Amino acid sequence: MATAPRLPADLSREAALARDAADPLAGFIGEFTLPEATIYLNGNSLGPSPSAALARVNEAATEEWSRRLITSWNRSGWFQLPYRLGDRIARLIGANAGEVVMTDGTSINLFRMVAAALALRPDRRVIVMEGSNFPTDNYVVQGLIATLGQGHVIRFAEHDAIAAAIDGDVAVVVLTQTHYKTGHILDMAAITARAHEAGALALWDLCHSAGAIPVDLNGCNADLAVGCTYKYLNGGPGSPGFQFAAKRHQADLVQPLTGWWGHGAPFAFDRDYAPATGIGRTLTGTQPILSMVAAEAGIDIAERAGLDRARAKSRALGALFQDLVAARLGDAGFELGSPADPDARGGHIAYEHPQGYPIMKALISRGVIGDFRAPSSIRFGFSPLYLRYVDIWDAVEILHDIMMSGAWRDPAFAAVEAVT
Amino acid sequence: MATAPRLPADLSREAALARDAADPLAGFIGEFTLPEATIYLNGNSLGPSPSAALARVNEAATEEWSRRLITSWNRSGWFQLPYRLGDRIARLIGANAGEVVMTDGTSINLFRMVAAALALRPDRRVIVMEGSNFPTDNYVVQGLIATLGQGHVIRFAEHDAIAAAIDGDVAVVVLTQTHYKTGHILDMAAITARAHEAGALALWDLCHSAGAIPVDLNGCNADLAVGCTYKYLNGGPGSPGFQFAAKRHQADLVQPLTGWWGHGAPFAFDRDYAPATGIGRTLTGTQPILSMVAAEAGIDIAERAGLDRARAKSRALGALFQDLVAARLGDAGFELGSPADPDARGGHIAYEHPQGYPIMKALISRGVIGDFRAPSSIRFGFSPLYLRYVDIWDAVEILHDIMMSGAWRDPAFAAVEAVT
Repeated sequence: MATAPRLPADLSREAALARDAADPLAGFIGEFTLPEATIYLNGNSLGPSPSAALARVNEAATEEWSRRLITSWNRSGWFQLPYRLGDRIARLIGANAGEVVMTDGTSINLFRMVAAALALRPDRRVIVMEGSNFPTDNYVVQGLIATLGQGHVIRFAEHDAIAAAIDGDVAVVVLTQTHYKTGHILDMAAITARAHEAGALALWDLCHSAGAIPVDLNGCNADLAVGCTYKYLNGGPGSPGFQFAAKRHQADLVQPLTGWWGHGAPFAFDRDYAPATGIGRTLTGTQPILSMVAAEAGIDIAERAGLDRARAKSRALGALFQDLVAARLGDAGFELGSPADPDARGGHIAYEHPQGYPIMKALISRGVIGDFRAPSSIRFGFSPLYLRYVDIWDAVEILHDIMMSGAWRDPAFAAVEAVT
Repeated sequence: MATAPRLPADLSREAALARDAADPLAGFIGEFTLPEATIYLNGNSLGPSPSAALARVNEAATEEWSRRLITSWNRSGWFQLPYRLGDRIARLIGANAGEVVMTDGTSINLFRMVAAALALRPDRRVIVMEGSNFPTDNYVVQGLIATLGQGHVIRFAEHDAIAAAIDGDVAVVVLTQTHYKTGHILDMAAITARAHEAGALALWDLCHSAGAIPVDLNGCNADLAVGCTYKYLNGGPGSPGFQFAAKRHQADLVQPLTGWWGHGAPFAFDRDYAPATGIGRTLTGTQPILSMVAAEAGIDIAERAGLDRARAKSRALGALFQDLVAARLGDAGFELGSPADPDARGGHIAYEHPQGYPIMKALISRGVIGDFRAPSSIRFGFSPLYLRYVDIWDAVEILHDIMMSGAWRDPAFAAVEAVT
């Protein structure tokens, strides 16, 4: 290691250790099974495994599937999982019981909910979205529009311009609350109010919000929402997503993916579809049980930790990272790709760097896991439930070493494009 | 137990044991983890657990998720699972590599494929289906039609009347090859040929066929197909389904559920959708990995067993059950609800009985697991990979005892409707 860095006292490693000693969430670290010698700053993409999730998957496989077999649909509560876990997720996003189901994946759920929104506003043809949003949201709406063939159009607007893009032609605004790349948090209350003022609906994608920041769907009077559980809720790879429909819309809610799980009497085996009352009408078919049961442990941890406390720590971890990078790597070419104000961003921070790809590869080789998003963003996620302040300090130390030593120039880390 | 039954020699328990001793598939029983004191005749609904599946789920959770975390999308091959497992399923259903992906569930996949079929026949408005089909297929198509709003209609026709229902107005026939209730197998080759003759497409639901009977999609010149993996392929509860599109249709295939996994360059994060070439364009979003990896063991067993051998044994198990019921319970009021000819039905047999509900409950209480389908069907599935001939003999012995003793009249077995 190079010469000991000279830093102001509050950015010292000792200060980080002191904050860990005083951290009210420190006990949750022990609830995760984490790899050794790794600082995992990518929980904004795939959360790590709660130990209880591993045990639960094993129990579901060996006890519920192997031993109870078909009877588990009732005896092990499999049929009720979308509702029961939906109700638990509801408490984390400001929704009521009976307003959320856990099912399928975000893209499928978004298709359903946007279609439902358009059906609730049959005389309007405009959908407001952010062009810079995680692209699957755009793709889903583009596919839906083409399928409907009714002349709907997407009106793309970026954050500050969104409110002005909402007029009387707009059926629904479809927005991701926390931006996947920059972490920028949109003002859900203000934009929803603006949408309602214009007679439009507001549909929120909570993929980068759920479990990361307190969300208050009903407090904001949101209409519809979708989200995933494998990021800050630590539900496991590809764990099912969720969807929310405010109670006031449920009786009139029509969605295109009508399958037997959404039928009012699925075991009557009627020939014709008749929707369930309530949120159940947004379900379609049989769910992937092993992936679904895995997700409950992470939801449980988030509930016990409390999202206010989690948010406060996540904010502090991110601010520490930001301050350390500014203090120690000010000349290394990193440009903040996220809001500088920690309150204006969610659980992750992006930096732009022309050599982002090999730098991230070098970091990963040293056990600091973040990710790269083309063309030049590197992202670091600050999940508060299993990260320590000293992990942040050590991560920046490693980044500093990689930059100062030029280790990132190792041809092994070169962008694939540059090598082949 | 009552007086020893008097049976013709070939229906004796000894004969069943002798057949087990000579069974070339007997070795596969040891590859399943099965509950004790259970004769599981419900693999047509949820297959039991291959021991390798349990091990694989545990490995994916503890090694791939916990230890490798985000890197598993590449290092553990998660991104490739829909293709790799799809190619393995393809070999079991007469399809080629690159024609099948494993993804989502049957209802979602059916929505996608029917929509694709209608887009390939834009000038036609009729969809031929069996009204008695498992209802989710009807519900899905009803929802799709309502969403499209182009005046499509379903023309319902039952098995013998299907061919006559196919005329020049038909865009696609959407049929389940093996009937969920009766087990009746439709003639895929003849109906597909008839559809093509009329300029229509043929879409086959293989839920009760895949793994149960040899299927030859390309030999029949089928256009599209869907199916599930948790029945005869023993993939685990709610394991993802699959979808097939014949190579000749892929370049023109347009489907409504356009998400990032179906994009030609998902990591370019382009704003606008551009489909992948090939079967990849039928994918939508992130898949439930733990449920998906669980399914490979059952696919592997089916491949090693060989579907011709599996079909021959399943046919023989069902015929033995049928003969034993006829010989021993001829007066007990069971009416065969399936084709009498074993070649005309798939892997299960249904009986109609006015007291079907309490009879099935009594059977389950004695460890013989079948299922009940309203109003009066009881179904027994004959999965050949983990059932022995003597299991069939013992199951009928228990059924005989329940009927002769009147045990089924126990109020504990009464239909819920009659109790509450």
